[in-house]
Amino acid sequence: MAKESKKLDDLFHDTLKDIYFAEKKILTALPKMAKAAHSEELRAAFEKHHGETEGQVERLEKVFDMIGKKAQGKTCDAIIGLVEEGQQVMKEYKGSPALDAGLLAGAQAVEHYEISRYGTLKTWADELGLGEAVGLLDATLEEEKKTDATLTKIAESVVNQEAEQAS
Amino acid sequence: MAKESKKLDDLFHDTLKDIYFAEKKILTALPKMAKAAHSEELRAAFEKHHGETEGQVERLEKVFDMIGKKAQGKTCDAIIGLVEEGQQVMKEYKGSPALDAGLLAGAQAVEHYEISRYGTLKTWADELGLGEAVGLLDATLEEEKKTDATLTKIAESVVNQEAEQAS
Repeated sequence: MAKESKKLDDLFHDTLKDIYFAEKKILTALPKMAKAAHSEELRAAFEKHHGETEGQVERLEKVFDMIGKKAQGKTCDAIIGLVEEGQQVMKEYKGSPALDAGLLAGAQAVEHYEISRYGTLKTWADELGLGEAVGLLDATLEEEKKTDATLTKIAESVVNQEAEQAS
Repeated sequence: MAKESKKLDDLFHDTLKDIYFAEKKILTALPKMAKAAHSEELRAAFEKHHGETEGQVERLEKVFDMIGKKAQGKTCDAIIGLVEEGQQVMKEYKGSPALDAGLLAGAQAVEHYEISRYGTLKTWADELGLGEAVGLLDATLEEEKKTDATLTKIAESVVNQEAEQAS
């Protein structure tokens, strides 16, 4: 059993480092996105999520602690690409009424990345018998799903408002 | 109205090119993932999804046609990063019983990227009055969600099987 569960342990630890890097990257991206947003509702959502993300980082640090490892990130190419795409949209659509729609799309892509990672980590934590970690990972997973649902709602109202303003 | 909806038009077109590039990239990655998979169930799921992805590419080509544009991709940094991460796992966990768990995690991250993109494109197509495109994008969105649910099921059974084999 030792060898086999050691391998899943490694994968769990690697993926923990991946999402830890990602959360830190998101913490630096969110204030820029909030500043760029035209809609007050969207700006507020980004600011709220910034606070949540700080709590999510703390939860990850607790999970690192539970497996006796130091909390540290590992370069995550996916989140770098996602944030890069978001910055490109901010640049290309600066001053455009479609900017908020673009910001929302980028933010939702990031949320979905996190949803997949936390879902995976939760499954593995359960298999590894890390009951307390399952609870922490699930708490973040539920927050990410809720944020994604909020963003979907804002996305629908934002594109409608843009069309109305323009008519 | 023209100026405003033109802007959302641009964003729709840009994002369509982004996901078209992504789908093509996924088409080349899936056979490698199927070949690497230990579990027959997982291999079959990747092969099935390869066939579905071909259909999804065709749907995107129809949507390009509906907006009078040539079907073409635009470098998508996010999918490059996601596929890169998957390849790294394949390399690092080659021969390990945890390889399938790693492949599944990578595939689910890709599915979630697609779920976010198709969800966004569907909302915009609706706002742009592209009713037929909404139907096509929704068909793919539902397929991606179904694939993600299948992968979650396999992920749970795969980690259990690994633990059993090792006990």
